[in-house]
Amino acid sequence: MKKIAIDAMGGDNAPKAIVEGVNKAIQSFSDIEIQLYGDEEKIKPYLIESNRVSIIHTDEKIHSDDEPAKAIRRKKNSSMVLAAKAVKDGEADAILSAGNTGALLAAGLFVVGRIKGIDRPGLMSTMPTMDGKGFDMLDLGANAENTAAHLHQYAVLGSFYAKQVRGVAKPRIGLLNNGTEMTKGDALRKETYELLAADTSLHFVGNVEARDLMSGVADVVVADGFTGNAVLKSIEGTAIAITGQLKEAIKSGGWKAKMGAFFLKDSLYDLKNTLDYSNAGGAVLFGLKAPLVKSHGSSDAKAIFHTIKQVRVMLETDLVGQLATAFSKEAEKND
Amino acid sequence: MKKIAIDAMGGDNAPKAIVEGVNKAIQSFSDIEIQLYGDEEKIKPYLIESNRVSIIHTDEKIHSDDEPAKAIRRKKNSSMVLAAKAVKDGEADAILSAGNTGALLAAGLFVVGRIKGIDRPGLMSTMPTMDGKGFDMLDLGANAENTAAHLHQYAVLGSFYAKQVRGVAKPRIGLLNNGTEMTKGDALRKETYELLAADTSLHFVGNVEARDLMSGVADVVVADGFTGNAVLKSIEGTAIAITGQLKEAIKSGGWKAKMGAFFLKDSLYDLKNTLDYSNAGGAVLFGLKAPLVKSHGSSDAKAIFHTIKQVRVMLETDLVGQLATAFSKEAEKND
Repeated sequence: MKKIAIDAMGGDNAPKAIVEGVNKAIQSFSDIEIQLYGDEEKIKPYLIESNRVSIIHTDEKIHSDDEPAKAIRRKKNSSMVLAAKAVKDGEADAILSAGNTGALLAAGLFVVGRIKGIDRPGLMSTMPTMDGKGFDMLDLGANAENTAAHLHQYAVLGSFYAKQVRGVAKPRIGLLNNGTEMTKGDALRKETYELLAADTSLHFVGNVEARDLMSGVADVVVADGFTGNAVLKSIEGTAIAITGQLKEAIKSGGWKAKMGAFFLKDSLYDLKNTLDYSNAGGAVLFGLKAPLVKSHGSSDAKAIFHTIKQVRVMLETDLVGQLATAFSKEAEKND
Repeated sequence: MKKIAIDAMGGDNAPKAIVEGVNKAIQSFSDIEIQLYGDEEKIKPYLIESNRVSIIHTDEKIHSDDEPAKAIRRKKNSSMVLAAKAVKDGEADAILSAGNTGALLAAGLFVVGRIKGIDRPGLMSTMPTMDGKGFDMLDLGANAENTAAHLHQYAVLGSFYAKQVRGVAKPRIGLLNNGTEMTKGDALRKETYELLAADTSLHFVGNVEARDLMSGVADVVVADGFTGNAVLKSIEGTAIAITGQLKEAIKSGGWKAKMGAFFLKDSLYDLKNTLDYSNAGGAVLFGLKAPLVKSHGSSDAKAIFHTIKQVRVMLETDLVGQLATAFSKEAEKND
């Protein structure tokens, strides 16, 4: 039985969306048990009772505007910290939250803890490509600064994930850079390029440019946290702006535009589906002793369900155990 | 009379698109003279003769895949280098090319030369926002690494440009960062934040996130060249992927989709116009002794026309002269 600790109070639609996602997951997967951390009174009305779901009541919660590190230190009884503690104490195997990202990262680092040999856990998400296959990118902003050694570790982590969870046989690793030639970039990129090229366990395909990410130029894209964060937010911002503009054009375009939109409905729906990658689950803080997944703050029940499904695959394939073995071997070699 | 040196052989559609853009500009503006550098035989068939256009013949040209610095050193008689030399020698006031970006940047730095007091010229473009006003961003990749002092200079350069060329009375300056709080980012961002906040000549509005750029959160966005390049390419790539996906959906969507597209035609056209920012001109390598503008490699005659128009405004407002004065005062103060 896989035990998943869930922060029922995190995110814009908590606890309703969280609990409804849990209901669906419990019905779909017979091999999971869920611990819901949060306000029992507020959780119960939405919960379909099951002997595989328990509520651990707490009044305290971390708000989206709380200062992350401080919140983790001071709100010891918050739903998020209690869920992280459950993982630390072995009562749960993984943690999921749609709450304050910074606080969740801090809870991961300071409560759950790092795998030995991994210096700086990185935040990773599966992002959309036009062929529907998607790509994994990390670090998306868990760190403001990274070294070449960190980026090399991200390549290893991302490669494991793409193989085990997404079923990509031989994941193509790309290094995000400002040009595709091997001499491109700053000192960090040049050093990282050499490390990746020298690691025969990786299928390194060289530098990739941000322009080509959505064309599926690599299965795993490695970036420092600052650039990765900027690229993630640029893609999101552009997609939101364009689809928003399209909606606006239809709304203000009179009867012709409305008629057009009616006929185009199915095609526009396909486009929305390609861009909506919530069925790939949430963002993983990668390099911890247990799976920690951040679902988007605006997650609905469907997104929560898919994130639980993602966590389940990570547990089923013992991704963290495999990483721990791989990195402890690496650490021994370096001793 | 404003004299503009144009590399007639650069870009995917050269010399046709270049010359046709020149024809239109000569008709529209009576106060410009244009020198066309390139293959006379190939230029002439497209050129409408005028006493304000001259052709300076050369057989040599720089290709899009030439190594930039090497090309500038070795191809002394290329259309691009000759155009840059004309500016250096005072025979022309500005240079425009749609050719090899790296080579043009190198020609700018090594042939045209920097304004005294400006350490690292930055590449700047006006990019689209959903309200149609646009924003200027720099550095977009002229440099792989930047210091806080460079970023401060970019803020000053961008502010001048937004005021003089785009007519923004009090340009809002934003620092691209991984969060809006003033404590966000790496050491470079924190140091830059302090420099920008302390400069009372700037209207600094704080940190901005890549997600909000297209919503028009600032008139000028300052970034290091590596991140700026990644953000520019992310926005481009996402826009191309989404509009491509939409076209594909319409094409493969059967008669309903085609009918929808027909009715939606005007609205889709508006969307395309919002995203197409070629009427704002090309990318400026900012901080040189003369305006140097890079038109997109795929520029058509219309884009070339708009870039000439942009160069004309830069000359009319004596942007470079004003910058030189401002930075020489700055240099004196620091002496």
